[in-house]
Amino acid sequence: MLDIIIRVNMSSLEVTMEKLPEGYRNLSGRGLTSRVVVDEVNPGADPLGPRNKLVLACGLLADSGVSSSGRLSVGAKSPLTGGIKESNAGGIAAYKMARLGIRAIIVEGMSQNGHQHVLVLDKNGGSLRPGGDLSMLGVYDKAQRIYDQYGKKVGAVIIGPAGERRQVTAGITNNDPSGHPGRYCGRGGLGAVMGSKGLLAVILDDTGASPVGPVRRDQFLSRAKQIARWIKETPQTAEVFPKYGTASMLDTTDAIGGLPTRNFSTGTFEGAEKINGYALHNTIVARGGQGTPTHSCMPGCHIKCSNVFPGRDGNAVVSPLEYETIGMVGANCGIDDLDVIARINYLCNDYGVDTIEVGCALAVAMEAGLMPFGDSGAALAAVEEMAKDTFLGKIIASGVVTAGRVLGVQRVPAVKGQGMPAYDPRAVKGTGVTYATSPMGADHTAGNTVRLNIRHSQREGQVRASRDAQLGIALMDCLGLCVMLVTALKDRGLLAELVSSRFGRNVTLEVLLDMARETLDIERAFNRGAGLTAAHDRLPEFFYHETNPVSGTVFDINREDLEQ
Amino acid sequence: MLDIIIRVNMSSLEVTMEKLPEGYRNLSGRGLTSRVVVDEVNPGADPLGPRNKLVLACGLLADSGVSSSGRLSVGAKSPLTGGIKESNAGGIAAYKMARLGIRAIIVEGMSQNGHQHVLVLDKNGGSLRPGGDLSMLGVYDKAQRIYDQYGKKVGAVIIGPAGERRQVTAGITNNDPSGHPGRYCGRGGLGAVMGSKGLLAVILDDTGASPVGPVRRDQFLSRAKQIARWIKETPQTAEVFPKYGTASMLDTTDAIGGLPTRNFSTGTFEGAEKINGYALHNTIVARGGQGTPTHSCMPGCHIKCSNVFPGRDGNAVVSPLEYETIGMVGANCGIDDLDVIARINYLCNDYGVDTIEVGCALAVAMEAGLMPFGDSGAALAAVEEMAKDTFLGKIIASGVVTAGRVLGVQRVPAVKGQGMPAYDPRAVKGTGVTYATSPMGADHTAGNTVRLNIRHSQREGQVRASRDAQLGIALMDCLGLCVMLVTALKDRGLLAELVSSRFGRNVTLEVLLDMARETLDIERAFNRGAGLTAAHDRLPEFFYHETNPVSGTVFDINREDLEQ
Repeated sequence: MLDIIIRVNMSSLEVTMEKLPEGYRNLSGRGLTSRVVVDEVNPGADPLGPRNKLVLACGLLADSGVSSSGRLSVGAKSPLTGGIKESNAGGIAAYKMARLGIRAIIVEGMSQNGHQHVLVLDKNGGSLRPGGDLSMLGVYDKAQRIYDQYGKKVGAVIIGPAGERRQVTAGITNNDPSGHPGRYCGRGGLGAVMGSKGLLAVILDDTGASPVGPVRRDQFLSRAKQIARWIKETPQTAEVFPKYGTASMLDTTDAIGGLPTRNFSTGTFEGAEKINGYALHNTIVARGGQGTPTHSCMPGCHIKCSNVFPGRDGNAVVSPLEYETIGMVGANCGIDDLDVIARINYLCNDYGVDTIEVGCALAVAMEAGLMPFGDSGAALAAVEEMAKDTFLGKIIASGVVTAGRVLGVQRVPAVKGQGMPAYDPRAVKGTGVTYATSPMGADHTAGNTVRLNIRHSQREGQVRASRDAQLGIALMDCLGLCVMLVTALKDRGLLAELVSSRFGRNVTLEVLLDMARETLDIERAFNRGAGLTAAHDRLPEFFYHETNPVSGTVFDINREDLEQ
Repeated sequence: MLDIIIRVNMSSLEVTMEKLPEGYRNLSGRGLTSRVVVDEVNPGADPLGPRNKLVLACGLLADSGVSSSGRLSVGAKSPLTGGIKESNAGGIAAYKMARLGIRAIIVEGMSQNGHQHVLVLDKNGGSLRPGGDLSMLGVYDKAQRIYDQYGKKVGAVIIGPAGERRQVTAGITNNDPSGHPGRYCGRGGLGAVMGSKGLLAVILDDTGASPVGPVRRDQFLSRAKQIARWIKETPQTAEVFPKYGTASMLDTTDAIGGLPTRNFSTGTFEGAEKINGYALHNTIVARGGQGTPTHSCMPGCHIKCSNVFPGRDGNAVVSPLEYETIGMVGANCGIDDLDVIARINYLCNDYGVDTIEVGCALAVAMEAGLMPFGDSGAALAAVEEMAKDTFLGKIIASGVVTAGRVLGVQRVPAVKGQGMPAYDPRAVKGTGVTYATSPMGADHTAGNTVRLNIRHSQREGQVRASRDAQLGIALMDCLGLCVMLVTALKDRGLLAELVSSRFGRNVTLEVLLDMARETLDIERAFNRGAGLTAAHDRLPEFFYHETNPVSGTVFDINREDLEQ
C-alpha cells in the first residue's frame, strides 16, 4: 500500500508508474523528497535546468485519519539557496495522493518550446494534458478553472505566474477542504522549479480510489484516538491554536524582542496589539460572514489552527492569515493594519510567491528609501506591481537578497540566499542557530526553539536546543506530520506504533529517528556537493554587531559552536 | 625605497604611514593586494561591511621608466564574486604612488553617518578631506573638479555614482597622461567596496617628490632599453597594437567562433567588419580631431595600444575603446555601430560600472525580450537609465547574474557571480578553463589562452594551457606589468634583472615565479574560507550542452580535469 511512484518526464511527456523501491519503504514526506533528490539530482545541476527534479511526497499516514498527518512535501535543488530544499504545507493534495496509493511524484526533464501542461492523476493512472489555457492566470483563477473542469473535490497543486516566470521566491500551493488554494509550500523557490519544467498544476482526483486501510486496524485506531485525545487535553492545541491560530505567537516574540520590526532594526512593535492573535480573532469574529477563526487545513485535523480572514463585507479575503505573514509583512514593514496585511497576503498567494520573502524584500525597499516604513498604501502598490510584472514587481518577487543587491541595501536578513522569517535571531538564538546551520537556509520550520522553556537571548545551550529541534522537526517532516502537533505529542513512541500498525511492520521510534537523522545528513552532503560549506553557515554580519534593543543582545554564537 | 604603506581608517578618519613589513619586500601589484587581503581580512567578512579592506598597490617598477610597468592594482573581497578579487589598469595613479614612495594604500573601516571623503596624498603625507561636493557626480565631472582644485597633473583614483550606491558592478578608475579618467579596474565590483567605505577619490600629487632611482643604475637602464627594443622588434607590439589596439583581437575570435554574439548564442557576428580593429582605426583616422588610434595610457609606455575615439565632430567621445567593450556591448548585443558602442562605453565610465557586466546584462535583457538584439536605441536608453537610477538602471548596474535572476533568464554567462568577457569558452577552451578555475571568476585577464598557437576548440591540453597562462599573468600582475608586453617579452629573466638592479638585491626569476604561485595559492585558500569550493569551478550549464555553431563544440572539459 502507498507504494506507487509516479514519474513524469516533461521532456518526453511520458508519465510512468513505478513501484516504490524496497530501500525507500519507510520513507515519506521530507525523508522521501530529499532521498530522491540526493539519489537522482547532481548537486551541480542548474536548479532551473532540465537536470533538476521536483519531488512531491505525502506522509506515511496521509490518508489514515490521524490528525495533522496530511502535509504535502515538495523537494528539489533550490534556485534560491543553491542547496537542497524541502518545503511542506497542509491542504488536501497529500491526502488525495495517498488515497490513490501514490507515495511520490517525480517531475524531471523540461518541456520543449515553452509548452505548458497539467498533470492529472486518478485511479486509472496519470497523464499530461495541455495547460496553456491556465497560463499566467493567478492562482485563484487557476483553481477555479480546475474546479470547473475537474470538480470541486479534486486536490490541486498549483503555481502562480511567479513560478511560470521562474521567479526565485515562487511557491507551490494546494487547496484546503474549503477550496481555498492557499496552503503554500512557500520557501526556497520551488514554484520556479515547477515552472521551469512547464508544469502548471497537478490535479488529484481520488474518485473511485480504493485505499488500503491499516493492517492492524484496531491497534491503529486506538493510537489515532490517543492523538486526538492528547490534542484535546493540551491547552495550546485545544484552545489557543483553534482560537488565535499561529498568530498567538506574536505577543511572545514581541515581549522578548523576537518580533522583527522595520527590517530587523528592533524586536518589538508599537502596533503589536493591532495585529496579534487577539486582534485577529476579534476582527474575524466581529465581521462574521465567510470569516472563521477556527478552520482545518487538512481533512481530519483536530487542531484547526487555520482561519478564514474576511473583509468588512464579510467576504473571505484570504485563508489562512498566519503569524509569519503578519510578522514579516506587518511588524517588519511597520504596518499595523490587518486588512492591508491580509490583502498583501492574498496578492502574494495569487501571484504565487512566498510572503516571508516579500515581507523581507518590502522592508529592504523601505530601508532603501523607496517608501517609508509603515506606508501601507505604498507597500500594497509595490506588491500589486508583481502581477503587473514591472521592474519593481520583479525585484520584490526576486526576494530579499536580490532586492538588497539591486537597491544597494546592506542590512539584508538572509542565510544561504533565503530571507529570514519572523524570529529575530538575536532574541531567539536557538532559532538563529537553526537559520545559520540548517541545510534549508533561514527557515524557522527547520527547527524553531521559540516554544522551548529556555532563556532565548542567552548564549548557552542554544546549539543543543537547535540541534534537538532540527532533528525533532525532521522526524515530523519525514512523516508528513504538522509541527502544531508537537505540543500535544506526549510520547513520540506513538508515531512508531501508528506506522507499525498501519503497515503491519515493526518500526521503532529509533528507526524513525534514524531516518530523520539520515535525512539531515544526506541533505548536508548534497549541499556540500552543491558548494555550500561551513562558510555559509552564518548569519548576516549586522546581527553580530547591532544590538537588539529589546533583548539587549547580539547574535554571539560563534563559528566553532555552530560547527558542532 | 618604495617602502611606504598608507593606512586609511575610514571609521576614525586617521591616515597613518607605515614601513613596508620585511616579509612583503618583494611584493607589489596583485601580489601585495592579495597578500594584505589574505593577512588582514576575514574571509567571512561582508564585502560591503567595515571588516573588508580595499588595497591599492603599484608595481615594483612603476616609476622606473620601464615600458608598460605602471599598472594600478586594486584588491579586496569582492561583493560580486564573494571571493578575493584583484583588478588592475593602466593610467598614471600607480606611477604617482611610486614617485611618492608608496607601495600600497590600505583603506579600512567605514565612514560614519554616510559622510564621504577624498584622500589626498603628497610629499608631506596624507589626509582625508570632506568629499561631499563630489557626491553623485559622474566620473568625468569628478575628475574635472579634482583637476580644478588640485591641478591637471595629479593622479586621481575615482569611483562613480555606481560605487557610491554600492552597485556590485562598480569599478575604480584612474586618469591617463591626457587627463581621461577611463583606466578602469573594472571587474569584481571593487568600486562598491570603495563606495561602502565613504571614499570617493584618492588624489596623488607628486609635486616635489624625490623618488629614489635604481640602485644599479647602468644595469637597470640597459635592461629597460632591452624591453623597449623588444617592443620595437615584435610585430604585434610595434605595429598591430599601436594601430588597431586590443580590437585587433576581434577578427581572430570572430573566425574561430570565439566572439560572443547575441548572449553567447553563437560565436561569430555578421557585423564584425563594422566593429573590428580596421573599422576602429579607419573611423578614428578619418574623423581626426581629438581622435587618435595610438595612445599611451601610462607614462613611458612604448606599446601605445590605447586610443581616443572621436565623434563625427572630432571631439573625444571616450578613451580607450577596447576589444572587451566592443565584443560585449557590440557583438554580444548584436550591435554593429561603433558610435553607439563608444557612447555606451562613455556612459558606463561616467556612471562607474564595468562594461563587460553591462554588455552581458544588456544581452540578457534582450534575451528576456525587453528589447530586440541589435536595437541600439533601446540599448542606449537602458544604459542611460543607470545614471537616472531607475529600476531598470539598477538592474543593469547589478550585473548579469542579478539581471538574469530578476528578468527570469536561464542562459546567464557568468562564473562565481561574474559575467564573462568576450571569449566564448566553447571555442577558446583554455580561457574557458580559466573562467571556471581562476580565483577571480570569469575573467580573461586571469589567464587568456587565445594568443597561444594551439587549436582552441580541441579538448586536449587546455587545462595545462590555462594553468600556465594563469601563472604567467599572475607574474605580470604581481609586478604591475601590462599583459600587452607579454608578446614582446623574449626572456622573462629580464624581469628579475630589472627588479634586482632597481633594488640592489638579487632576485631570480624563480623567486618571482614563486611569488606568483604563492599569490594564486593564497587567493584560492582565501576563497575556500569564503565558501567557494570546487563546486563553483564550473561554467553555466548551457555551455556544456548547447553547441557553438561555429566551432561545432561544447565546453567538454570535465570536473576531474578542472580539479587538477
